[in-house]
Amino acid sequence: MNIEKNQIAQHNDTLLGKHQKQLSHLKNEWESVDIEKVIQKLVDFQIAIPSWALGTGGTRFGRFAINGGEPRNIEEKIEDVGLLHALNASSGAISLHIPWDIPQNPEQIKSLAASYGLKFDAVNSNTFQDQPGQALSYKFGSLQHVDKAVRKLAIEHNVEVIKQGIALGSESLTVWLADGSCFPGQLNFRKAFENTLNSLQEIYAALPANWKMFVEYKAYEPNFYSTTVGDWGQSLLYANKLGEQAYTLVDLGHHLPNANIEQIVALLLMEGKLGGFHFNDSKYGDDDLTTGSIKPYQLFLIFNELVEGMDARGMDHATSLGWMIDASHNVKDPLEDLLQSIEAIMIAYAQALLVDRKALTEAQQNNDVVACQEILQHTFRSDLRSIVAEARLRAGAALSPLNLYRNLGCRKSLIGERGQNTVATGL
Amino acid sequence: MNIEKNQIAQHNDTLLGKHQKQLSHLKNEWESVDIEKVIQKLVDFQIAIPSWALGTGGTRFGRFAINGGEPRNIEEKIEDVGLLHALNASSGAISLHIPWDIPQNPEQIKSLAASYGLKFDAVNSNTFQDQPGQALSYKFGSLQHVDKAVRKLAIEHNVEVIKQGIALGSESLTVWLADGSCFPGQLNFRKAFENTLNSLQEIYAALPANWKMFVEYKAYEPNFYSTTVGDWGQSLLYANKLGEQAYTLVDLGHHLPNANIEQIVALLLMEGKLGGFHFNDSKYGDDDLTTGSIKPYQLFLIFNELVEGMDARGMDHATSLGWMIDASHNVKDPLEDLLQSIEAIMIAYAQALLVDRKALTEAQQNNDVVACQEILQHTFRSDLRSIVAEARLRAGAALSPLNLYRNLGCRKSLIGERGQNTVATGL
Amino acid sequence: MNIEKNQIAQHNDTLLGKHQKQLSHLKNEWESVDIEKVIQKLVDFQIAIPSWALGTGGTRFGRFAINGGEPRNIEEKIEDVGLLHALNASSGAISLHIPWDIPQNPEQIKSLAASYGLKFDAVNSNTFQDQPGQALSYKFGSLQHVDKAVRKLAIEHNVEVIKQGIALGSESLTVWLADGSCFPGQLNFRKAFENTLNSLQEIYAALPANWKMFVEYKAYEPNFYSTTVGDWGQSLLYANKLGEQAYTLVDLGHHLPNANIEQIVALLLMEGKLGGFHFNDSKYGDDDLTTGSIKPYQLFLIFNELVEGMDARGMDHATSLGWMIDASHNVKDPLEDLLQSIEAIMIAYAQALLVDRKALTEAQQNNDVVACQEILQHTFRSDLRSIVAEARLRAGAALSPLNLYRNLGCRKSLIGERGQNTVATGL
Amino acid sequence: MNIEKNQIAQHNDTLLGKHQKQLSHLKNEWESVDIEKVIQKLVDFQIAIPSWALGTGGTRFGRFAINGGEPRNIEEKIEDVGLLHALNASSGAISLHIPWDIPQNPEQIKSLAASYGLKFDAVNSNTFQDQPGQALSYKFGSLQHVDKAVRKLAIEHNVEVIKQGIALGSESLTVWLADGSCFPGQLNFRKAFENTLNSLQEIYAALPANWKMFVEYKAYEPNFYSTTVGDWGQSLLYANKLGEQAYTLVDLGHHLPNANIEQIVALLLMEGKLGGFHFNDSKYGDDDLTTGSIKPYQLFLIFNELVEGMDARGMDHATSLGWMIDASHNVKDPLEDLLQSIEAIMIAYAQALLVDRKALTEAQQNNDVVACQEILQHTFRSDLRSIVAEARLRAGAALSPLNLYRNLGCRKSLIGERGQNTVATGL
Repeated sequence: MNIEKNQIAQHNDTLLGKHQKQLSHLKNEWESVDIEKVIQKLVDFQIAIPSWALGTGGTRFGRFAINGGEPRNIEEKIEDVGLLHALNASSGAISLHIPWDIPQNPEQIKSLAASYGLKFDAVNSNTFQDQPGQALSYKFGSLQHVDKAVRKLAIEHNVEVIKQGIALGSESLTVWLADGSCFPGQLNFRKAFENTLNSLQEIYAALPANWKMFVEYKAYEPNFYSTTVGDWGQSLLYANKLGEQAYTLVDLGHHLPNANIEQIVALLLMEGKLGGFHFNDSKYGDDDLTTGSIKPYQLFLIFNELVEGMDARGMDHATSLGWMIDASHNVKDPLEDLLQSIEAIMIAYAQALLVDRKALTEAQQNNDVVACQEILQHTFRSDLRSIVAEARLRAGAALSPLNLYRNLGCRKSLIGERGQNTVATGL
Repeated sequence: MNIEKNQIAQHNDTLLGKHQKQLSHLKNEWESVDIEKVIQKLVDFQIAIPSWALGTGGTRFGRFAINGGEPRNIEEKIEDVGLLHALNASSGAISLHIPWDIPQNPEQIKSLAASYGLKFDAVNSNTFQDQPGQALSYKFGSLQHVDKAVRKLAIEHNVEVIKQGIALGSESLTVWLADGSCFPGQLNFRKAFENTLNSLQEIYAALPANWKMFVEYKAYEPNFYSTTVGDWGQSLLYANKLGEQAYTLVDLGHHLPNANIEQIVALLLMEGKLGGFHFNDSKYGDDDLTTGSIKPYQLFLIFNELVEGMDARGMDHATSLGWMIDASHNVKDPLEDLLQSIEAIMIAYAQALLVDRKALTEAQQNNDVVACQEILQHTFRSDLRSIVAEARLRAGAALSPLNLYRNLGCRKSLIGERGQNTVATGL
Repeated sequence: MNIEKNQIAQHNDTLLGKHQKQLSHLKNEWESVDIEKVIQKLVDFQIAIPSWALGTGGTRFGRFAINGGEPRNIEEKIEDVGLLHALNASSGAISLHIPWDIPQNPEQIKSLAASYGLKFDAVNSNTFQDQPGQALSYKFGSLQHVDKAVRKLAIEHNVEVIKQGIALGSESLTVWLADGSCFPGQLNFRKAFENTLNSLQEIYAALPANWKMFVEYKAYEPNFYSTTVGDWGQSLLYANKLGEQAYTLVDLGHHLPNANIEQIVALLLMEGKLGGFHFNDSKYGDDDLTTGSIKPYQLFLIFNELVEGMDARGMDHATSLGWMIDASHNVKDPLEDLLQSIEAIMIAYAQALLVDRKALTEAQQNNDVVACQEILQHTFRSDLRSIVAEARLRAGAALSPLNLYRNLGCRKSLIGERGQNTVATGL
Repeated sequence: MNIEKNQIAQHNDTLLGKHQKQLSHLKNEWESVDIEKVIQKLVDFQIAIPSWALGTGGTRFGRFAINGGEPRNIEEKIEDVGLLHALNASSGAISLHIPWDIPQNPEQIKSLAASYGLKFDAVNSNTFQDQPGQALSYKFGSLQHVDKAVRKLAIEHNVEVIKQGIALGSESLTVWLADGSCFPGQLNFRKAFENTLNSLQEIYAALPANWKMFVEYKAYEPNFYSTTVGDWGQSLLYANKLGEQAYTLVDLGHHLPNANIEQIVALLLMEGKLGGFHFNDSKYGDDDLTTGSIKPYQLFLIFNELVEGMDARGMDHATSLGWMIDASHNVKDPLEDLLQSIEAIMIAYAQALLVDRKALTEAQQNNDVVACQEILQHTFRSDLRSIVAEARLRAGAALSPLNLYRNLGCRKSLIGERGQNTVATGL
């Protein structure tokens, strides 16, 4: 299903009056700020959609499908992301997962994506599952495995994923490893680290010069005693040992309880080793809930560090880091879920852009903790939705993407086209 | 130090233009809602200030004093709360802690408080510290103690606290117990529970008919293995066994990591056993940070349950529960800290009042999870500060309490009056 | 595959010399204790095996099968438990899960079980998954559901499960609900509670007079914002409202981080509402690891409360509570996993039986915390494996069940009988 | 108070028969192991006692003194450690805290310590409290402070501590910083890191060539939003940037919930950057409970990594790392507390020494997870207390230190010598 320009225009027309009143109020409130510049940054900011988030997720206790219309193949996944991008003009990239999304004809897929204005973001390898007919099993790890033959299999898979990515125009590889152990004694931690490092080095050697490798970390799950890339400190060790093209990737849900993620982000930026981001939200563990649905203030604080840290290094916000959603759930229409996540991300980014940095620096310099808090809370408590909407409007998208999605009956159309019993590949 | 009416008026005059523009925009945005009713509820809502939050807090690693002017006695504590109440018209009560605040002349104290428009909220007993010259020690607990004589001492102290409260016009007793154990085996849990229950029953018997007893729970600290009123389930057990005048008191910082506090609140209201609230915020444990400084969305979600639950039982928001701040810290001027906490509470309450309950109920009924989230996020993302300010304006207080406090040099005045090396009693 | 008596005898013969030396040393060390009585209690103590633990478990990221031989049907599951029971004489019951284990011919199944010396423990209902062809979905809950028709379906399923249980000689129903919500606002907590309570009441009404209903609680997963039976306090509320036949069931993995489970156990026993236990171990969440593999001291402390609390109420250890394992994992042979879990449970139980209660009570009475700790650590640090082994020996089982299982090549035999690509129903 | 050789001899005589029986049983059980070698390692292993653990600790809620006899000065603290060392021959070092323990006459103090067989372990600086008359305050941090003058003060203090240490024969400095922030926005994380690094570099420059600097990390407390050396990853960053003499120090209580500390230990050893250890135990946070009182299996797993990792690098167990207790509590006699901690440490060390490494490596190599667990549990479940006692016996100390301490009425003697109202400096 495609959304026509005139459908968007019609939708925007009905909301324009209210929107302009809100925007004009906001501009008045922030008259000392160059709002146009902020809007342009919002226009430029694009968040990649992972192919696996387009279908219903599940838990080990089962999976409840939505009413249908899930994308059945890579083409339909691209179509779904195209739909999102048409609605919000902020989802201009897709992140594929190999082997769930192996393109048969990369050129054709590339031009299909281009027709929706989409690029290919990081490609993701998968060594946390065995594929049918796989010669050796990843049951006891992949890059960490005690058996060299298993490591070799996993290395080759990653090299293959890079090749797939090259064909599509991707420029980064995300390596998330489930490697670890479930019971004390199962692993020699040091040897597991060394095996993993050696394996990563072989994959790294296959990277094109313009590529980045993202080493993702995760505290636990699916292994429940140790993880071989378990926290940012371990990921940074690998990245430093690998070389300049290797970076740490932060997924919001991959931390121990109460971790200060914004500080981790700031330090990784300081070290020049923050590579990218997986957005989602959680209350207990890697719950993969809609971004901003549980701890929106934390999301803002993270963006606050991102903006400050990238500006301090002269990094372009839109292009110097990999931005991606990694959420996937059961009880919502996946496309609506993604629209909500992106809205939350854009609002948090807008809030961070509007923080009065000069005043904040001065308050920090004076240890005026009360003022520091006031400055952050002031932008967070402000209603910035109208500049996010304005950015969409200028980019040709919808003032209210979710409403338009619903009003146009998108899910119903997708069901009509694809049927009711579709299941997207992925989690 | 007193703030004069004309100082407030002058302050408000300079901000009025901007305020009215914001308020009028807000009213436009919420034209379908009876904003006047909401403002009245905000005017009526009062949060008690605990006497111990007026001085600098500390940790076991030490205490860093502010520059001075801490209240040296109960009169000056009342003066401080009077100052807050003059500024925000939302702090119309004080909660005393015995023996830190024993009034020598209750009638005089009462009329002093009345002169500031203040009431006496819950009185708090203290059996977590030994007082100089105390015959027996609370080292191994108080109401739980294996030695009946220690229990008797603690019971008598609580009865004495009730008497003090009666003299001042309080109508509730908050019992927070540090009782518990630090090491496995130290306590027989069952006997500790039974001793505590028996002790509470004796205290309960001393309650006037119009009084409530609040049984506060806490997961840990200062005992680090078990706490004898450790969670809401235990508190509810005690409250149910005690009788109709006994209730559970929820302190936001007293939970295990990741607890869903808003659900606890909803269930206690359902059971008719929610008695009151201690507001603060935290990232790790009972950090006692400024309310709303870490998890403002959680604060809103809690108020969302409070409003829904109180309305369902026809309870008056302002009077049917005990509302109190229980925070205390080191790196802020305590009065500024309290002004920030109250602002955060009032905003969260305003957000909860504006939730479109009819739409929410309908969305819940349809399992439209996306819509449920949109409804809550809509009010949370709205900027409601102007109706909170309007409520203050109508009640004769300042549009911007913190700014006025700073502009008037209140801390400097207090230092001038009281000196630099004052130390308030308390934590 | 069956283990013959003479295979066990032969195995025991080779180990007997060493065993008797160890046992005799132990008896010397504990000469003041009636070791015979302890051994008899160990002989009597039986732990039920859940049918779903006999196959390989998995996570949402996938499932790695063992090399084969998983039971393909209820008969083979019974056979597996029979094998365990032959090896350790402590696994004399099986707990079925409906609809994974619907017996076509209950009488035949009963006599099959009897031939292995097995009873049928609690039957488990399943409303956390939709079954193929199910008319209505449990996607948004079952007993809590806003739609009465869904609740009815779930109620009827539970009533059906009771019927199945009656036919087999079970005497209890375990209700574990995944009901809850993933996002703030999704549920009205109070109504969800009330719906759940009403549904449970209808199920309760179908209980035979000699049956118990176990209301299991869980903090989170598969719902990641709230759970409608979320903690022991909520479970106890339901159990109290339901009546005398309703009890709380404690699963070790279903708590928030750092929870003091042993205290919960003590209080539930005090209230006469502890119904049963699901054993497993975990580091992060409901990891379902082998019992005793992560926190063996906690397991001992729990048994310490169980023994103390049951003795205080004159409850028979073996029969007054439901004892069951609920673990299931990926990286071990399930039968070996279960043998390790049961060994850990028996050791913890033995440790608890040997605690010097008189000395402990006296130390507690004197607040001699150091002595309390010494007393508990003394039994925990003692090597009690030989009395656990002696209990097995007397009951006709193997001195070293795991070694015998391996030496006899049990898995290999099972693969030979059942094939390599078997998959047991369950998680 | 001094313990005489003959008092120890007399005590040992009464216990010798039983001890020898236990030891001989143990030797039989472990006949394939060179037990003599293990005993010698136990004899060599010494754990430093921190001077602040000799008095009663407290919490922010207060402090309950013991009955008296706390050491009033550095001489009495040394006397206390001497007492412990006489009892267990495993406490042959003391770790001082400046300015709590400034020696007036270092030579005299040194020879006093030598008379008890004690060395001076790491010296500890204190920039988490202001000292009376201090020119500038550490309220907003020390080495991280925005004001260069405060940083200078803190640097100079550390340099002074090094000087004190040199005079006493210490060879390491432990830097634990409370530096961090309590509220979002308070700090610029990057600048705080850079300031801290610069400050540490100046201190590092003052280190003698044979000294080590230990950079301790802590997740939170007394700062409750961020800590500037917050986790092992941050500590390692500092240590690597500082140079070869800088190391990470691990305190067991300084982690987020559920952290896998043993893996951190293994990786730091791998990197050659593990410097030392602070032993204690905890259930919730930095509870500073007696080592081994809550999670003894975790303690064993940590020692298991230590032994494996040190052996892999050819490091001497006793001398290549700094071993220290850092616990301090309220409800026990501090000396008894320390005796219990050391016993737990020695047992865990003995367990780790007895792990069958060859079998473990082989099982790991085969991914035989069940066997890996069996191997670890076998040593953990064995009763190794008699070889720990034997090591004491050979070193001239008591078979049962705690019993001898009690039987000799040590606390009573100390009260007699020092009085009842003594308060040791420290937490």
